[in-house]
Amino acid sequence: MSQFENTRIVLASRPEGRPTPQNFRLEQAAIPAISEGQVLLKILYLSLDPYMRGRMSAAKSYAAATEIGQVMEGGTVAEVIESRDPAFKPGDIVLSYSGWQSHAAASAAQLRKLDPANAPVTTALGVLGMPGFTAYAGLLTIGQPKPGETVVVAAASGPVGSAVGQIARIKGARAVGIAGGPEKCAFVRETFGFDAVIDHRDPDMAGKLAAACPNGIDVYFENVGGHVWDAVFPLLNTFARIPVCGLVAQYNASGEFPGPDRLPMLMREVLSKSLTIRGFIQREFVAAQGPAFRKEMASWIADGSVKYKEDVVQGLENAPEALIGLLEGKNFGKLIIKL
Amino acid sequence: MSQFENTRIVLASRPEGRPTPQNFRLEQAAIPAISEGQVLLKILYLSLDPYMRGRMSAAKSYAAATEIGQVMEGGTVAEVIESRDPAFKPGDIVLSYSGWQSHAAASAAQLRKLDPANAPVTTALGVLGMPGFTAYAGLLTIGQPKPGETVVVAAASGPVGSAVGQIARIKGARAVGIAGGPEKCAFVRETFGFDAVIDHRDPDMAGKLAAACPNGIDVYFENVGGHVWDAVFPLLNTFARIPVCGLVAQYNASGEFPGPDRLPMLMREVLSKSLTIRGFIQREFVAAQGPAFRKEMASWIADGSVKYKEDVVQGLENAPEALIGLLEGKNFGKLIIKL
Repeated sequence: MSQFENTRIVLASRPEGRPTPQNFRLEQAAIPAISEGQVLLKILYLSLDPYMRGRMSAAKSYAAATEIGQVMEGGTVAEVIESRDPAFKPGDIVLSYSGWQSHAAASAAQLRKLDPANAPVTTALGVLGMPGFTAYAGLLTIGQPKPGETVVVAAASGPVGSAVGQIARIKGARAVGIAGGPEKCAFVRETFGFDAVIDHRDPDMAGKLAAACPNGIDVYFENVGGHVWDAVFPLLNTFARIPVCGLVAQYNASGEFPGPDRLPMLMREVLSKSLTIRGFIQREFVAAQGPAFRKEMASWIADGSVKYKEDVVQGLENAPEALIGLLEGKNFGKLIIKL
Repeated sequence: MSQFENTRIVLASRPEGRPTPQNFRLEQAAIPAISEGQVLLKILYLSLDPYMRGRMSAAKSYAAATEIGQVMEGGTVAEVIESRDPAFKPGDIVLSYSGWQSHAAASAAQLRKLDPANAPVTTALGVLGMPGFTAYAGLLTIGQPKPGETVVVAAASGPVGSAVGQIARIKGARAVGIAGGPEKCAFVRETFGFDAVIDHRDPDMAGKLAAACPNGIDVYFENVGGHVWDAVFPLLNTFARIPVCGLVAQYNASGEFPGPDRLPMLMREVLSKSLTIRGFIQREFVAAQGPAFRKEMASWIADGSVKYKEDVVQGLENAPEALIGLLEGKNFGKLIIKL
């Protein structure tokens, strides 16, 4: 393709249930012109994240849906190739929210410059970016783990879960992770240093989780829902806190869910155990905690107390398949498309 | 009966579903002897409250169940008739937790002296007692109503609901109440001064509630559950707070609830609207907020900004029927047994 073409992936149709490749369409378009205060970006890396499933649906959510024919949204690391703003010059590497495309115009005010000497620039999409901040803000503000308490998180090999467990341990709590398959479980225990890890494919997952949490669960960082919730629920302690940042297991579901109705039992436990359930989107906390997060997380990475893992897939054209796999837990670490 | 006999009501059997008079048994027993540091009490008033249904069941809850044959628990206002503690003398009126009986021994340390000159002593069981404090602590600590926000509470003619709405208005919020029947609704609007009130028996309750909350609901103080929840749920605003202190509508239920399963939809809304659901028992907040509550509530009663209503039933023998009625919303105001 010519360097004067913008390659992009748009939403072709809304998925019913599990997304398919037919819901996406690869297009060529003209490179956008930039106006005063803007820069032209060449995208280097695109972040793929579970929230993207929500944007593909028309259902009401915390953010507007992507329209049919619009470029799929997403966080990106990009190189400035043309600038009409004094704060940026060609060659600068920036964090932007440019979506699934090779080039984009962006307002300078919406960019954050990255210094490749500080950390690999891809970390701005993962451990030092939105997923890491989701873990940090949700765990510390809502979860509030105390020394000796037990923190449970699913998708523990992923960018949010792995940070949740490692930050919990930094705060003196026990970290119990749930992950899919022996390879991920070993990584969670050995590299991320969780105190225990359970394979969610284990037929006795609930029993194993109970055994790994002999003092119950004080914080359940909810990012998946589904059958992990069912295993966690009876183990929750009085005054347990449940930050809810994702429900990947039910993103592809639609229509009514079959009974029995678990809502009355949930509310009974909320009451009898004084539980706190709190949904959140990380941007709620960005203004107050973003700078502290970047400083603190960078120091934890530097001193080795937080590790991270990236899963880099080559080529924008592979993004649809990669996102479909992400929703099924096929990625292993922070999923990033390298353009 | 002789003045040397203690009349008491014990739990005869555990209810399955709705309690019946057969679950209770009236007994005579000896007046207890008191030891050093104790007083002998003659009970004047017994508080009946929804939580008592929970104590009748063996199901795990925040408090131990009452054993079969044990005196039913409950808050009481009593007169000291004999004292072996220097802090109390015969004739003193105290708040105690003596249960469904005419006489009781109590440790002086567990009593609080009441001054009848300050307020009618029955208010220590209602607006100035546990129900009023439940409203105060739950609404202010968890609900955190801001000026102009909309606060919804059910059982609005009851001791908790009426205080929730009136405190919400003191804090500058709109108070929307839900109550059963025209008489209670009129009282909620006219005497308690709510901005709007909905009859939960209205076939279009959900539609009326939506009309009464044109800007959505910011705080739903949950004390009933059931179909009120279903009407409230779609109206919740982003960042809405839901203190949960009771679920009267489901206390008599047992076994599984028929589908569809509403839990996944609840969690989806928790996530997409950043909802806070927080169960609580008032005693969690007593040490920190009890003194401030008593002072502030007394001043609100004195200046007329908080009104209260009591529903006084004569005779301990009528307590079982009164409690059964309470669980069906038959009381009108704070239910108190006068012995």
